[in-house]
Amino acid sequence: MTNLFANRVLNNDTSDLNEVFKNSANPGNISFAGGFPDPQFFPKADLEQAYRDAIEDDGQGIFQYSSTQGLPALRQKIANRMADHADVHVSADNVLLTQGGQQAIDLVAKLLLNHGDAMAIEGPTYMGALAAFDTYEPTYYEIPVDDDGMNIQQLQRTLQAHPEIKLIYTIPDFHNPTGTTMSSERRKALVDLANQYDVIILEDSPYRDLRYSGHSVPSIKHYDTEGRVIFISSFSKILSPALRTGWMVADDDIMKELVNLKSASDVQSPNITLAAINTYLDHHDIDTHIATISNAYRTKRDAMLSALDRYFPKNVHYTRPAGGFFIWVTLPTGVDAKELLNDVVIPEAHVAYVPSACQFASRQVKNGFRLNFTNLDETTITRGIKQLGAILQPARLMTAPTDKLAVQF
Amino acid sequence: MTNLFANRVLNNDTSDLNEVFKNSANPGNISFAGGFPDPQFFPKADLEQAYRDAIEDDGQGIFQYSSTQGLPALRQKIANRMADHADVHVSADNVLLTQGGQQAIDLVAKLLLNHGDAMAIEGPTYMGALAAFDTYEPTYYEIPVDDDGMNIQQLQRTLQAHPEIKLIYTIPDFHNPTGTTMSSERRKALVDLANQYDVIILEDSPYRDLRYSGHSVPSIKHYDTEGRVIFISSFSKILSPALRTGWMVADDDIMKELVNLKSASDVQSPNITLAAINTYLDHHDIDTHIATISNAYRTKRDAMLSALDRYFPKNVHYTRPAGGFFIWVTLPTGVDAKELLNDVVIPEAHVAYVPSACQFASRQVKNGFRLNFTNLDETTITRGIKQLGAILQPARLMTAPTDKLAVQF
Repeated sequence: MTNLFANRVLNNDTSDLNEVFKNSANPGNISFAGGFPDPQFFPKADLEQAYRDAIEDDGQGIFQYSSTQGLPALRQKIANRMADHADVHVSADNVLLTQGGQQAIDLVAKLLLNHGDAMAIEGPTYMGALAAFDTYEPTYYEIPVDDDGMNIQQLQRTLQAHPEIKLIYTIPDFHNPTGTTMSSERRKALVDLANQYDVIILEDSPYRDLRYSGHSVPSIKHYDTEGRVIFISSFSKILSPALRTGWMVADDDIMKELVNLKSASDVQSPNITLAAINTYLDHHDIDTHIATISNAYRTKRDAMLSALDRYFPKNVHYTRPAGGFFIWVTLPTGVDAKELLNDVVIPEAHVAYVPSACQFASRQVKNGFRLNFTNLDETTITRGIKQLGAILQPARLMTAPTDKLAVQF
Repeated sequence: MTNLFANRVLNNDTSDLNEVFKNSANPGNISFAGGFPDPQFFPKADLEQAYRDAIEDDGQGIFQYSSTQGLPALRQKIANRMADHADVHVSADNVLLTQGGQQAIDLVAKLLLNHGDAMAIEGPTYMGALAAFDTYEPTYYEIPVDDDGMNIQQLQRTLQAHPEIKLIYTIPDFHNPTGTTMSSERRKALVDLANQYDVIILEDSPYRDLRYSGHSVPSIKHYDTEGRVIFISSFSKILSPALRTGWMVADDDIMKELVNLKSASDVQSPNITLAAINTYLDHHDIDTHIATISNAYRTKRDAMLSALDRYFPKNVHYTRPAGGFFIWVTLPTGVDAKELLNDVVIPEAHVAYVPSACQFASRQVKNGFRLNFTNLDETTITRGIKQLGAILQPARLMTAPTDKLAVQF
């Protein structure tokens, strides 16, 4: 039957990712692979009460079909939050509720990408975004990321060389997987380039509210002068991923088509869930909750950075993120992090990470990996990094002299 | 910015549908347009308790990321139900939980359809399926429907003429929009044709359990000999559409790719909702609930058929469905049901229906419309049909002598 599958399926090898998460699920390993929140902070009692209150307040009607765009009261709260937390001033009509941030990415790809259409994407980037974009079979142009986010000079050269690029995908806040944040200068320059080259920017910002040090910068959408920026965020990291509720903010022309595409994809999001989130927000200050989890994640991040400082050799580089979920590690050029994982790290150190190749559109950069620090306690983090550090000592690493595709850190 | 949209968006005119539902939402009109369950039967107290019990029983873990395929216990219950209610024997591994039946349709389109790929589709068909398929830009071959379902002779001729067809989409049980059910002989013949011409069948069956007269027939999947049939159903019509939970059943090779595509589309369905449905099914006999709503819908169907018999002129044909949500009306050839709706029916009769054109892939058949009978009480149904019947009297209908594209009833 596989002869009938579409090219997007036949050409898509997901075996790498499946392997990563199989390893990560083995309880004998310390897994830094997933991107999971710490479950102890999910506000169970408050959410249970919110479901109950929402059903009691709305009655039978809560179980009926409702609007594709999603519960107006919740969209209004998100519009207010966009003003307070991202310096973006929009109405509830410019907010669409989605099945997590993932569906929002899928909808933007559906909106813009014909087979072969060109887009710019950070390298590395969120592997789930690659999975979503891959199904629309775009032509990728990879832009490196450094400590100030996407390299804007490289982006400019790429846009000049490829004026057919329609879309730039970026994760500006506590980037997945590197943890770095785009500077406000680059955000403004990015919008200027999008205006100049007639491109849409997809700003994916699920970690924006999880800052552990330094000061917030405005969203890219804040600098938008021509309605070219689509902003995505989600309740997954700040409340619960099992709610599967994200949101996107876009200007009218784009929003109209996104709503139609959402309707064609799944009609609408579950109204009961949206009403429960709305009720939760009515009765609780989510920023107090976010402060609680941010404090805990700061401690975890600091534990991981301390362990990295102590146990990792000097020729291994790692980022020092000011927020989010991830630290990115760069091995000496020539080391293949996936081979290392399967041949040595899992069998000997009993630790799992996400190797770099599946986090690049090119799949060609092999000497890096992603570490998550939010889902383990500090003792386990320290033990895991110590075990991993022992493997990464120079004498144990097979390196080759050059690797043109090395990570840019 | 619209110059950047993909062809699937630029070529897609959704204004018809938007207009239909705008009219339908006007409280001054009696709307037979939507496909809504009667909200009075949503088991509010039981579902409220199910959410509470699910959260209490599962604890913090219910709020975490979970599996893409969906809660194993619920998939097992659905596998059992498939055996009892559709004569299909599969394991929980062959069940995928989706965001309503709509996402299941979208995932099958994503699995199979490159731009321009050929598929066979009933005419008329579910307009939401057209919206989903349209975004993959297939080449449609339309197969007429009669009182025994899809015309299999016509399908055979089409498959012979177009061996490139990869997919047949059918709604065999209480078809949306005609209400007719495919005979068991045709189901078997359909599978034989799919085997002969190497085609996948998508069996979309959200109304299967809502039978008001006659006897159940096995699902098409029951006759599947080569793993060519993908079966879809949903809790939307038998429990609540706001749960946004459907399921699909497919053999291993197909299921593996559907799970990957679901992951790329929205990662997974909301685990809290799935756990609540699972808990509801643990504590309640859903077939007792289905019997309650079926009794109510039988009465509504009979009220609509009685009113049609009484108030509609003899040159207007309508179906007599044995279950489901809809009755299909065929006007004399030459009458444009959409013009009639906007020019006369809404302004004078204050009634809304869904005109035929947007329910055909060709958009060319204009002399029919769909009526829903589940969401209004019998008195309102009778009044609405009386008001509509007055408009449809021969003296008021402008007819043309021939219409080659007329509905096949």
